[in-house]
Amino acid sequence: MEMQTHQQRKKRKPRADGERTRAAILNEATSLATLHGLGGLTIGRLAELTGMSKSGLFAHFGSKENLQLAVVATAARCAQEEYTGPAAEADTPLEKLWSIAARFLSFVERRVFPGGCFFAAVTVEMQALPDAVRRRIERHQNGYFRLLDNWVREAILGGELKTGLEPEQIAFELHSLIITSNTMYKIHGDPAVLERAWDGVRRLLGDPGRARRRQAE
Amino acid sequence: MEMQTHQQRKKRKPRADGERTRAAILNEATSLATLHGLGGLTIGRLAELTGMSKSGLFAHFGSKENLQLAVVATAARCAQEEYTGPAAEADTPLEKLWSIAARFLSFVERRVFPGGCFFAAVTVEMQALPDAVRRRIERHQNGYFRLLDNWVREAILGGELKTGLEPEQIAFELHSLIITSNTMYKIHGDPAVLERAWDGVRRLLGDPGRARRRQAE
Repeated sequence: MEMQTHQQRKKRKPRADGERTRAAILNEATSLATLHGLGGLTIGRLAELTGMSKSGLFAHFGSKENLQLAVVATAARCAQEEYTGPAAEADTPLEKLWSIAARFLSFVERRVFPGGCFFAAVTVEMQALPDAVRRRIERHQNGYFRLLDNWVREAILGGELKTGLEPEQIAFELHSLIITSNTMYKIHGDPAVLERAWDGVRRLLGDPGRARRRQAE
Repeated sequence: MEMQTHQQRKKRKPRADGERTRAAILNEATSLATLHGLGGLTIGRLAELTGMSKSGLFAHFGSKENLQLAVVATAARCAQEEYTGPAAEADTPLEKLWSIAARFLSFVERRVFPGGCFFAAVTVEMQALPDAVRRRIERHQNGYFRLLDNWVREAILGGELKTGLEPEQIAFELHSLIITSNTMYKIHGDPAVLERAWDGVRRLLGDPGRARRRQAE
């Protein structure tokens, strides 16, 4: 363990506090954006929610665009931690596909963000966002689609997935099922739509027997 | 033909102009809402787009909530004219399902609104909308889902649709396919996603042979 002088600790503490504050603000901001979109994420609304002053928030982020970029980064990190990262750890390509679907549906069900998937929430306003923010969201979304596409291709090549469909078709339908249940769950709060998505995934990928939605988490 | 006095014509003309103006404003407002959401539909933005004064717009609608309600009504009428209405005219329940999918995809492809389906665009901000506006949107969406559900049930009962799936599952998957292609077409502009949706619909409903997406319009 590294020893540190009182002077160093004194120097460090505010920075650590600042980071915690920043993380807490960004979590609130991302939650807010899943309900109101990035356009609806105003410094004023965020000030109300976090109990911070508007000037304090400006000091943290400098501009609305910087705040938006930081929110996109927060949402991307969350997606990585919640579903894309753990799914990539699964043994085979087909198991990765099962895992990403199961974990995404769990992420929606647990209301990690009140408005569900951030990237689904902001697709509506994409054309209205600043270029840098839009490009950052597009980069994330392209990465996610590439991941699905690759896993589907590998699962077909490896003989795990035999549907006779084109890889892009399977990836499109897999995405359609889980993203639509995200939207419908957000609006109606009825967990039946998560089961509908899961049933669709099972028909699309074939039932691997041991994969159960809740166990696959 | 009814004769009318000069006095009557003088009285009527402004009213007719007013209605045309109102319809034009509402069309712009609905288009704007498909890009920015109803929350992003400000009187200021609308004034810029229509070249009208803010006070003139206030005179038309009285409040932001009234403007939002009028926009929802405009979008609902458009949905009725574009896909639910014509689909209901088809001969059999299965043909109605084919027709609503084909017409919805055509509606998306023709960019009737620049941001695609209005009801998909506003689902993001539902929780943030005034109660009356949210209820009006929910009523529309419930009507649409009930329509899909009923047609699927009738198609199964009539022996046209034999998939072994529950009616709700078929309705959910049909909706998933077409609404996801709406979102992806909006973002990427790639018509391939409309074909993906159509291929999915074909697998889901069975290929009726003569139904082709473009011919079904």
